Amino acid sequence: MADDRTTKYVLNEENLSEAWYNIQADLPTPMAPPLHPGTGQPIGPGDLAPLFPMDLILQEVSQERYIEIPQAVQDVYRLWRPTPLYRARGLEKSLELPDRVKIFYKYEGVSPSGSHKPNTAVPQAYYNKIAGVTRIATETGAGQWGSSLAMACAFFGIDLKVYMVKISYAQKPYRRAMMETWGAECVASPSMDTNAGRAILDADPDSTGSLGIAISEAVEDTATREDTKYSLGSVLNHVLMHQTVIGQEAIKQLEMAGAEPDVIIGCAGGGSNFAGLILPFMPAKFAGGKARIIAVEPAACPTLTRGVYTYDFGDTAGMTPLLKMHTLGHTFMPAGIHAGGLRYHGMAPLVSHLFDLGYLEAQSVKQVAAFEAAIMFARSEGIIPAPEPTHAIRVAIDEALLAKESGEAKTILFNLSGHGSVDMAAYDTYLSGSLQDYEHPAEAIEEAMTHIPSRA
Amino acid sequence: MADDRTTKYVLNEENLSEAWYNIQADLPTPMAPPLHPGTGQPIGPGDLAPLFPMDLILQEVSQERYIEIPQAVQDVYRLWRPTPLYRARGLEKSLELPDRVKIFYKYEGVSPSGSHKPNTAVPQAYYNKIAGVTRIATETGAGQWGSSLAMACAFFGIDLKVYMVKISYAQKPYRRAMMETWGAECVASPSMDTNAGRAILDADPDSTGSLGIAISEAVEDTATREDTKYSLGSVLNHVLMHQTVIGQEAIKQLEMAGAEPDVIIGCAGGGSNFAGLILPFMPAKFAGGKARIIAVEPAACPTLTRGVYTYDFGDTAGMTPLLKMHTLGHTFMPAGIHAGGLRYHGMAPLVSHLFDLGYLEAQSVKQVAAFEAAIMFARSEGIIPAPEPTHAIRVAIDEALLAKESGEAKTILFNLSGHGSVDMAAYDTYLSGSLQDYEHPAEAIEEAMTHIPSRA
Repeated sequence: MADDRTTKYVLNEENLSEAWYNIQADLPTPMAPPLHPGTGQPIGPGDLAPLFPMDLILQEVSQERYIEIPQAVQDVYRLWRPTPLYRARGLEKSLELPDRVKIFYKYEGVSPSGSHKPNTAVPQAYYNKIAGVTRIATETGAGQWGSSLAMACAFFGIDLKVYMVKISYAQKPYRRAMMETWGAECVASPSMDTNAGRAILDADPDSTGSLGIAISEAVEDTATREDTKYSLGSVLNHVLMHQTVIGQEAIKQLEMAGAEPDVIIGCAGGGSNFAGLILPFMPAKFAGGKARIIAVEPAACPTLTRGVYTYDFGDTAGMTPLLKMHTLGHTFMPAGIHAGGLRYHGMAPLVSHLFDLGYLEAQSVKQVAAFEAAIMFARSEGIIPAPEPTHAIRVAIDEALLAKESGEAKTILFNLSGHGSVDMAAYDTYLSGSLQDYEHPAEAIEEAMTHIPSRA
Repeated sequence: MADDRTTKYVLNEENLSEAWYNIQADLPTPMAPPLHPGTGQPIGPGDLAPLFPMDLILQEVSQERYIEIPQAVQDVYRLWRPTPLYRARGLEKSLELPDRVKIFYKYEGVSPSGSHKPNTAVPQAYYNKIAGVTRIATETGAGQWGSSLAMACAFFGIDLKVYMVKISYAQKPYRRAMMETWGAECVASPSMDTNAGRAILDADPDSTGSLGIAISEAVEDTATREDTKYSLGSVLNHVLMHQTVIGQEAIKQLEMAGAEPDVIIGCAGGGSNFAGLILPFMPAKFAGGKARIIAVEPAACPTLTRGVYTYDFGDTAGMTPLLKMHTLGHTFMPAGIHAGGLRYHGMAPLVSHLFDLGYLEAQSVKQVAAFEAAIMFARSEGIIPAPEPTHAIRVAIDEALLAKESGEAKTILFNLSGHGSVDMAAYDTYLSGSLQDYEHPAEAIEEAMTHIPSRA
């Protein structure tokens, strides 16, 4: 009977990672630097100093292979880390897979905010704290990032102001309440608290906001206050590096299970949970390893599968440095899918670089198919997934079924980046049969791409 | 630094309990039996056979000290068990406690439904399955029980119909969506699906329902179908026994920590999470152990602190056997506090018996004070508690502060029975300053008690 049921691989605390893995040390070719939008020249640490504490800026450009995780950060990680890895025997049984096809998942939903986001929120709050920063400003879409940073700031005694996209602020009051429970101030963006917000509300009092507008507000907030720094939950190198604790643990747990993955899968919006899982597997891949690595994005925001690889702004308003990345254009407005965390016009430069070098595959998935997979997963494994990783589950199931048909042996690993307890409205919509698929017509994507500075 | 931060005590899977602890073997005096309401005579196993599978009926009356946990149940427990025990260093720091005052908490929110309820939902589904039952009917108030049983039924391939109190059905759509995600059918009670429901809707089409009405519907559903059994999430002996895995693990984890509790605290509604923690500590208490054991109930439903100890019905409609328990009267309607899981007019007969014998203390807490404690807890420890265990946290903090003042050494243990991700509306109400306290006037309680059969 034991062999029929899902198996959990638990690491004890001695296996907590003591260093983040910095893939920049091992890249076959270096990344293209961010450029100053005015001069077109590479930006230096000094250009970022108004926004970030120097420790994080140095991590952003570091070429050291391992960066020690400060003891104070490890002590917080320890509250929920190491996270479990599961062999998905329940799901395998539902799919009637032969024993040669195995599915594993790493589960990040055991953190207090329910996702992988605290892996970077905690060190970001810590490095701000030791730099003497007393207040942070950030933006959030669906609220996973804002709530995780709120918790981290509570631990380190830092004030936090979150600009939350107005439509999500209205639709996801639970996420706002979580931020406030952890002591953060959360306002709907566009707000009356910044010039950027007021200008937009003047022009359109009914604006429902966007991630781009919220970034503009948080950056302006930071730039106009001495006590405040800015914080970002994905995209940047140091953010992805903080997430590598996921993959480091997964490697140890797969060893416990005596398994080696043939396919490694993660959903990708900005790219942080995907990178967190896959980066520690990359040295083996660079050395000729055969494991396929698949980034799964929503069909409604197909950055890798339909975007271009070029320099573009990180935000809609065009206030950030230019980042070389896969992008649909910084003015692209992804359809209103439930996986709010995957609605980003670009992709982390590091993930884009690895994709461009041919080390990664990309697939896009429609949300109805993703939720169909999630329902099967929940009924087989118990955990109800957040809308974002439903995309990874869909591809994991598809890969398993392909192997079942073809007769090949295949070990599949995916990242279950969070649970869906605060996103049950999405399941409700699916179960009532009213969930819609979205795909942007080619012309809409073409049009958005004409606004990319390097193509304008 | 490590000593400043909360410490997590993790058991490996070899420490998963292999048997439930049945305190009936060790009671100094036996419990009073349930009585048939018609004859006034003790009921026998045969009387319960239409409602429950025989394995559970035998557990209800067993005098064996340990009852083996079936392998198939252990295999599901393993998905999230053993659960962690924490030394609450963050909270201790916020309270500025001296080192002689220590707070520990056992955390049951790591289960997929977010509470301790699956500890009994899984074995109940299992014993129904091996008895050939293909369908279960149950009721749920706030939805913790209904969703946990939905998950358990999904694992064992059993159909589930949940009658959910209509006001909660409307106010907590996320809980309903969880049940449906796990494959259960959930209807608002009173429903048009039973005679009991139709009669109530005929008389009052706007009825918002009650737990008593929902029980009536689930019991009628069971009684009128060959394929269906009934399932209850608290109160009964076998339900409490299934929860003893909590306390068994806690004892091992406290040994790891080198700690011995002076005070053990749990919130108590029907009594199952409280009993799950404290029952394994009772043999030491019977042997003269000095640990104080405190049941915490809401001031709005003060069963132990203001009720009487006598025979009463388990449900509002008076359809169940008579149970000897602390009760406010089966027609008592507790005020609409957010801790829906604590709104029960009675108390588990086993907990009532231990209280009557003088082994337990009871305290009542108002919800504003409970949420105040929960906010401090969340900002210190990360986890946002469900509304029910906020009551336990309040008393844990009060006990710690008393010891801080008095100079005594004190080790406190409480049960954090679930997380609050699906209950953030309650926090929102508290944070906006509009949360109300409720206390029932003495006359209202006296009036409800006149309906208790043994006092009528």
